[in-house]
Amino acid sequence: MQADAMSDRAAWRRELYRIIFQHDTRGGKLFDVALIVSIVASVIAVMLDTVESIHATSGDLLYAAEWGFTVLFTAEYVLRLLCARNAGRYARSFFGIVDLLAILPTYVSVLIPGSQYLLVIRILRVLRVYRVLKLVKYVGEADTLMTAMRESRRKITVFLLAVLVLAVILGSVMYIIEGEQSGFTSIPRSVYWTIVTLTTVGYGDISPQTNLGQTVAAVIMMLGYSIIAVPTGIVTIELSRARERRPPPRRCPDCGEVGHDPDAVHCKFCGERLERGAGGYASSGASRPI
Amino acid sequence: MQADAMSDRAAWRRELYRIIFQHDTRGGKLFDVALIVSIVASVIAVMLDTVESIHATSGDLLYAAEWGFTVLFTAEYVLRLLCARNAGRYARSFFGIVDLLAILPTYVSVLIPGSQYLLVIRILRVLRVYRVLKLVKYVGEADTLMTAMRESRRKITVFLLAVLVLAVILGSVMYIIEGEQSGFTSIPRSVYWTIVTLTTVGYGDISPQTNLGQTVAAVIMMLGYSIIAVPTGIVTIELSRARERRPPPRRCPDCGEVGHDPDAVHCKFCGERLERGAGGYASSGASRPI
Amino acid sequence: MQADAMSDRAAWRRELYRIIFQHDTRGGKLFDVALIVSIVASVIAVMLDTVESIHATSGDLLYAAEWGFTVLFTAEYVLRLLCARNAGRYARSFFGIVDLLAILPTYVSVLIPGSQYLLVIRILRVLRVYRVLKLVKYVGEADTLMTAMRESRRKITVFLLAVLVLAVILGSVMYIIEGEQSGFTSIPRSVYWTIVTLTTVGYGDISPQTNLGQTVAAVIMMLGYSIIAVPTGIVTIELSRARERRPPPRRCPDCGEVGHDPDAVHCKFCGERLERGAGGYASSGASRPI
Amino acid sequence: MQADAMSDRAAWRRELYRIIFQHDTRGGKLFDVALIVSIVASVIAVMLDTVESIHATSGDLLYAAEWGFTVLFTAEYVLRLLCARNAGRYARSFFGIVDLLAILPTYVSVLIPGSQYLLVIRILRVLRVYRVLKLVKYVGEADTLMTAMRESRRKITVFLLAVLVLAVILGSVMYIIEGEQSGFTSIPRSVYWTIVTLTTVGYGDISPQTNLGQTVAAVIMMLGYSIIAVPTGIVTIELSRARERRPPPRRCPDCGEVGHDPDAVHCKFCGERLERGAGGYASSGASRPI
Repeated sequence: MQADAMSDRAAWRRELYRIIFQHDTRGGKLFDVALIVSIVASVIAVMLDTVESIHATSGDLLYAAEWGFTVLFTAEYVLRLLCARNAGRYARSFFGIVDLLAILPTYVSVLIPGSQYLLVIRILRVLRVYRVLKLVKYVGEADTLMTAMRESRRKITVFLLAVLVLAVILGSVMYIIEGEQSGFTSIPRSVYWTIVTLTTVGYGDISPQTNLGQTVAAVIMMLGYSIIAVPTGIVTIELSRARERRPPPRRCPDCGEVGHDPDAVHCKFCGERLERGAGGYASSGASRPI
Repeated sequence: MQADAMSDRAAWRRELYRIIFQHDTRGGKLFDVALIVSIVASVIAVMLDTVESIHATSGDLLYAAEWGFTVLFTAEYVLRLLCARNAGRYARSFFGIVDLLAILPTYVSVLIPGSQYLLVIRILRVLRVYRVLKLVKYVGEADTLMTAMRESRRKITVFLLAVLVLAVILGSVMYIIEGEQSGFTSIPRSVYWTIVTLTTVGYGDISPQTNLGQTVAAVIMMLGYSIIAVPTGIVTIELSRARERRPPPRRCPDCGEVGHDPDAVHCKFCGERLERGAGGYASSGASRPI
Repeated sequence: MQADAMSDRAAWRRELYRIIFQHDTRGGKLFDVALIVSIVASVIAVMLDTVESIHATSGDLLYAAEWGFTVLFTAEYVLRLLCARNAGRYARSFFGIVDLLAILPTYVSVLIPGSQYLLVIRILRVLRVYRVLKLVKYVGEADTLMTAMRESRRKITVFLLAVLVLAVILGSVMYIIEGEQSGFTSIPRSVYWTIVTLTTVGYGDISPQTNLGQTVAAVIMMLGYSIIAVPTGIVTIELSRARERRPPPRRCPDCGEVGHDPDAVHCKFCGERLERGAGGYASSGASRPI
Repeated sequence: MQADAMSDRAAWRRELYRIIFQHDTRGGKLFDVALIVSIVASVIAVMLDTVESIHATSGDLLYAAEWGFTVLFTAEYVLRLLCARNAGRYARSFFGIVDLLAILPTYVSVLIPGSQYLLVIRILRVLRVYRVLKLVKYVGEADTLMTAMRESRRKITVFLLAVLVLAVILGSVMYIIEGEQSGFTSIPRSVYWTIVTLTTVGYGDISPQTNLGQTVAAVIMMLGYSIIAVPTGIVTIELSRARERRPPPRRCPDCGEVGHDPDAVHCKFCGERLERGAGGYASSGASRPI
């Protein structure tokens, strides 16, 4: 009888697990859509609350909404802990922490009122969107992009470091040339201006006034215009390589069937545990809760 | 005798159809050139009418011109409906709707005077330019571009979503750092600024004033400067693939069947004259009027 | 004796021709360097003369320099006409016209004083720099670039047309949204702003003030940030193709030797006239004066 | 006995040489980390000293820090001279000169007080970061980038020259169109504005006010937006070629010979220890001290 209860509970947990963590059943898809709507709505609510005129007229409503979303996400978090095969591992995973950070600030704000810095933590909720994105077919695409970016990370770092060194030197030169009167009041400020110019952002809050300064600025612009080609070239090449290097299909070690979802843990045909295999996918997130 | 009249009318319609919908006869080309000139002229007239000084001096003239173009386009629309083999299908096609939208606003403005919002609908006329573009050899080129963009649509979407999530998080951070005094008055406004900076547009209407804010801004610029490489890489690769692929199949303008030989002049199923070679035509738009 | 004089004159003309039009002798190289220095100096003189403070103090000097350069370039033009094997063909070639335009404005300014519009024609002198550039090894590089740009011209045109149509529609939308108070005073002005934003230039002289306007602006920026990938992809592909399609070496029809300069007319080993051959090079300029 | 002393000294020098110039021992790595921290700290100190508020409160502290860093770098420079196998060659190498320039300005400032221009020389210290970067695995990446940039140097130069010529012509046209009242006060200033616009920087300190001026400006922006594709295409292609090429040969730090096997630990000609694997090292800088 106890074994029956056990297996009942196991069945219930398995069902819940399928809805919350997986995306291939109807219930799972509905859950995902509901979740994504709540996340986007709650992030928009947090953002709108900082607009003074909206805070003045609808502050109470937004406060209530914030508590509503928090209760909802808390329930979801508890359910995830309950049905995860290994609750501790889920809690320590990347998305486990993001899920916790999505609810903590509201509770903390009761204890430590007025802490504005909790805002940013609340905004981090937006990251949860990525978890749900797995439901759609965009995972493969995101994966190719991630692989390309991981591969080009080092070259981009070397490139950005070179840009930074260039910006420090050119910024100092501009500080000497322009001096105080045109806004180049210190080297850090000049370096800031140089980065604004090299990256072709060009705010115009600081801009050179002397002839020599404008000439050097023109050189810096041409430089920035040319070297933007470097990261582009790097990523293009890595993308074209990432594309060629598609992961092999995962095959069930028991029944030999293929066609499993990237985040599937068990074979959907015979229930046998799948190997972690298929490189790219496995490393693309922390969704396997066991 | 009635059959004679019928076939007479059919011949007349076929001739008209060839002039209006096809581009390979001399009459068809003349019609296309006249049409493109009218479209461009009418769009310019709508635009100039919003310039106050021009409206004051030549408002009446532009009003007359608007009616002239409307009558012209109405005649064209009626002729298209008449000679199209399947008037209903033409009316519901993309270009059929654009053709209707090009004339409706002027008539509506008589009933509901002063509605400024009709302006944008009038401007949509500019889309009609694309229909006529088929006359030149640029179709093949546009087709390659369209294919590449269609293929990279998903990756670009994933990328833009990631940029948006990044902008929301970084915008919130800047809101906390800069506070009210530098124009970062709310998170939505900060997010707007972050997008302005990440995309290297840099208006300068809002710009960070604190040291920490400028440092974070510099990091955001470097980020924007680097990640612009991602869509570029995606499109480059898709373009190089689109190029390798063979042209889409030619489609009969009458029965809609495909599978014609490259050198076929008439549809092998219904005998209707096929558009000239370049398979590109078929898939590039909604010109089939039936 | 007359034949002797003839051949004497021919020898003299041939020597001059080699110095002025060709770049492989010592004299020819010296002439090229002298010419490039004069061109750059004369363009800088024209530019500096428009700076009020410089015009006030050194206007007379610059006026004298302008006449000096004009006399120099006139002498050069006459010599070119004299030694060119076909003076008429040289005069009608692209560089022949540029050479004439470099000297005409100064003479015309005596007849029609104060004509400011001659300034731009004078500035066109800067194009003469290209002729001399042939002396260095950069020709091959410039040629690859030119080929790639010629090949991608059509696709870029289609792309820019699409951007323009997009800018007209989005500009009209912004005109309706923002209205008069934020600088979006007419549709042409709104379209101008949209192009400033789509191309990520972002002056900030006009910028949206309403919430809806800023949201649409953010969308326009993301769009501009993404579609800049299109011309980049096009050019990258054409460049990689231009590289593969190197012209075959020109071979002397008489002695069979290769290794002739791109603009060589005669074989440098046996003097035989070379075929116009070697595609890319022949089309890259108008330097062959005969 | 003297030989013993000699070899003792040699052993001491060799040990020091390994710590200072090489990166594969524990001591060498510690030294590198300490050096990179000092360099970054000293550059930040120089930069902060130009901020007026910081100079007012912590000027004395920064002055002391500057002297501390100078003494440290002087000691390092002397040690490098001492243990380098060929002190003269080290002193004349690129990094030898940078090392000297890192310490000279502080001493010179005692003799010639108040010379602001020494600031930039002090900032050049930041270049020393590159020497230490060799310790990490980024060398290979930097090497690929350098190769690609070296290969595309000529094409980029041709491109930038074309952009400059374009900017001169378009700048003159804008000067004629806009005239004095919108900030286009001289051709050099107009050319500056054109470069700001072509490179999509767009400060907004100068912006066209007339209708014709804004139209031409829109054309310039579209042009800049399209031609940015050219350097990108060039670098992408060169990067993809640089990748295919095999690494440059390893060079013995002592005798300068090349041709060592990939797994060689010692020079096969003189027995000196070779730098660890990655051929990249040899060509990436001037670290060979002899």
